[in-house]
Amino acid sequence: MDNIIEIAKRAKESSRVIANLSSKVKDNALKEMSRALIEASEPILSANEKDMKDGERKGLSRAMLDRLKLNPSRIRGMSDSLVSISELKDPVGEVLGMRKRPNGLRIGKVRVPIGVILVIYESRPNVTSDVIGLTLKSGNSVILRGGSEALNSNIAIHRVLSETAEREGIPGNSINMIVTKDKKTVSLLLGLNQYIDLCIPRGGEELIKKVSDESKIPVIKHYKGVCHTYVDEDADLNMAEKIAFNAKVQRPGVCNAMETLLVHKDAAIRFLPSMLKKLRDAGVEIRGCPVTRNIIKDIKPATEEDWYTEYLDLILSVKVVEDIDEAIRHIRVYGSMHSDAIVTDNYERAMKFLDEVDSACVYVNASTRFTDGFEFGMGSEIGISTDKFHARGPMGLEELTSYKYIIFGNGQIRE
Amino acid sequence: MDNIIEIAKRAKESSRVIANLSSKVKDNALKEMSRALIEASEPILSANEKDMKDGERKGLSRAMLDRLKLNPSRIRGMSDSLVSISELKDPVGEVLGMRKRPNGLRIGKVRVPIGVILVIYESRPNVTSDVIGLTLKSGNSVILRGGSEALNSNIAIHRVLSETAEREGIPGNSINMIVTKDKKTVSLLLGLNQYIDLCIPRGGEELIKKVSDESKIPVIKHYKGVCHTYVDEDADLNMAEKIAFNAKVQRPGVCNAMETLLVHKDAAIRFLPSMLKKLRDAGVEIRGCPVTRNIIKDIKPATEEDWYTEYLDLILSVKVVEDIDEAIRHIRVYGSMHSDAIVTDNYERAMKFLDEVDSACVYVNASTRFTDGFEFGMGSEIGISTDKFHARGPMGLEELTSYKYIIFGNGQIRE
Repeated sequence: MDNIIEIAKRAKESSRVIANLSSKVKDNALKEMSRALIEASEPILSANEKDMKDGERKGLSRAMLDRLKLNPSRIRGMSDSLVSISELKDPVGEVLGMRKRPNGLRIGKVRVPIGVILVIYESRPNVTSDVIGLTLKSGNSVILRGGSEALNSNIAIHRVLSETAEREGIPGNSINMIVTKDKKTVSLLLGLNQYIDLCIPRGGEELIKKVSDESKIPVIKHYKGVCHTYVDEDADLNMAEKIAFNAKVQRPGVCNAMETLLVHKDAAIRFLPSMLKKLRDAGVEIRGCPVTRNIIKDIKPATEEDWYTEYLDLILSVKVVEDIDEAIRHIRVYGSMHSDAIVTDNYERAMKFLDEVDSACVYVNASTRFTDGFEFGMGSEIGISTDKFHARGPMGLEELTSYKYIIFGNGQIRE
Repeated sequence: MDNIIEIAKRAKESSRVIANLSSKVKDNALKEMSRALIEASEPILSANEKDMKDGERKGLSRAMLDRLKLNPSRIRGMSDSLVSISELKDPVGEVLGMRKRPNGLRIGKVRVPIGVILVIYESRPNVTSDVIGLTLKSGNSVILRGGSEALNSNIAIHRVLSETAEREGIPGNSINMIVTKDKKTVSLLLGLNQYIDLCIPRGGEELIKKVSDESKIPVIKHYKGVCHTYVDEDADLNMAEKIAFNAKVQRPGVCNAMETLLVHKDAAIRFLPSMLKKLRDAGVEIRGCPVTRNIIKDIKPATEEDWYTEYLDLILSVKVVEDIDEAIRHIRVYGSMHSDAIVTDNYERAMKFLDEVDSACVYVNASTRFTDGFEFGMGSEIGISTDKFHARGPMGLEELTSYKYIIFGNGQIRE
């Protein structure tokens, strides 16, 4: 446990060095790390094989095993991602504003790294290299705490990346991984607010709740996505069908997939029969409100619990609403403020939806599946914040920074 | 206690209404509130008299009684401040950026209110009206929890402002004050993260520590200011003397006042005798490092504890350092990352200090006393954040907002 405190302390010391590294040093290191990752494919794959065998023995689900699995093409993806990050604009030092005050003081606002970032995550080993790349580029030290099921893979990835980084001039203690499986480690880390500046938990609801409740460090939650698509009475129903189908079916296991379809009562009879047939043909289980079940007889009722549920699966709850106000109210009560869409050709209601739905990403006439750092043009993302604090929605490099004021005077004193 | 939960719940509901009010309605309300405050001078002053008498009976210090005291001119100041806030630009709805993606999606980033803000503060009753004004203008609901010593004054101020606001169309439950003296109330409030979005504690170290440790709500700390002025070997010593004197003496009881003076060893003999004489003539008690005490014999030694201390008083610790690196290290170890200044005519060291001192406000050749929302041109401030998170340094209206993404599509789905 002393070891953990020592790691955090040294990460803090290193953070002061990495904060002031030039873009050139950081970008070179990222490119070398990208190359080294490919070269280390063999030890990484064999470590991953061990994790896969352990996982099979422990009876992990197929979905979890699939997320855990590495192959040469996935390693190539991780490697490419490091190059992409090296090509993004360095956020550190960006001048966010500068004003001259009547007394002659020049007050500038500049972007600075946050310091030490703790990332707690589950299964997918590619998160390890993405997080290392993004925190390095944004001038932060990082402490990684991955899921125990991916421990061998993560250790192998971390080893090659941190060793390469150090060879390329990145301070040695800025890329850290906690390798013990002891669960008390997380609690210990969450109390080290003198060394760690920010915690980003990525994973299931339970993990995020535990971290938020326990942490003395500020936390940016990557909470669940109970995303809605509301089909208005003036929707282009053809467009609505495509958008809703995409939002549910294209990749049901992710946080920006639709979980609940809301339909205006005047569109329900025209829209639902064909929409629900298409979804059911694609293997989607429908759970409906009473009105929905009046229109399509053979579907299960949606319970109160359903409206709150992030299925992450081919299941959809469907509700017919009186009007846009009921839709907005429903989203407010049951949603998770992640991503919600309206499909409509009515200008006023489109604007109303944008104003009154207080989610990180609010869409008109598009699939909620676009909530993603790449799709938003940020180049990469460390996750999607469901907080209203510091960072909201997709978090890229800028969201991994803070700012400070720099003030240039020539002898000003306050009267 | 049920009552507290009910207040928080209704504040949340109201926050959705106040979030979408027009600037006109908010600004009119602020102007009417400004007028009403003057008209209610009599009940406010008599409530304040009661607090003053209670305070004297309880043996509050002169300084605390002075902060508690209201008079017609202080009420005028509070009233004027509400007008100033009404004249500031409305931050809500500001478009922070808009980009068109290759697939035709238009992705905008717009400022939105945070929601419900809990402000926990001590003594000064003018904080009550400032906070009400700033949270209203930024479209947030507020829950105020003032110090028990100012309870009657706060109730009187809150009553007139909330009643006037409601008459002018501000939703009734958006301006709330907790009036019980029960200390358990704060713990209860800090657990209501389903209703309250942000907590800002303003007050002594102990209060802020208690709130940060206990809160399930995100907290922006307004922590202590252990501010330094470093006099470099190439400083204009005349300027350095003026700046250091101003930073220590002009208003010693505030967080941006200097607590420690650092002096380069090559400047010490030329600088310290006259500087310290001037400070002592102004009533400042000096506590020095061994080198300082070699130069000026009759001063007290500074203990390890002194370097960490926010005196908020006419006391100053003085240390002679080897070079700028030692100065920066000292600030890092003992400072509070609030405001720190270098006085120098050397360009390179000025830049080094700006880069390497990781404080909210870093000054070259000016007094740290300028760290203030008004002085920074923000119009007003709700406080000064010592966090690196969400808001840093002086917090004005913008820092009381979050953002959301609004996405305009015409049928885009993800491939």
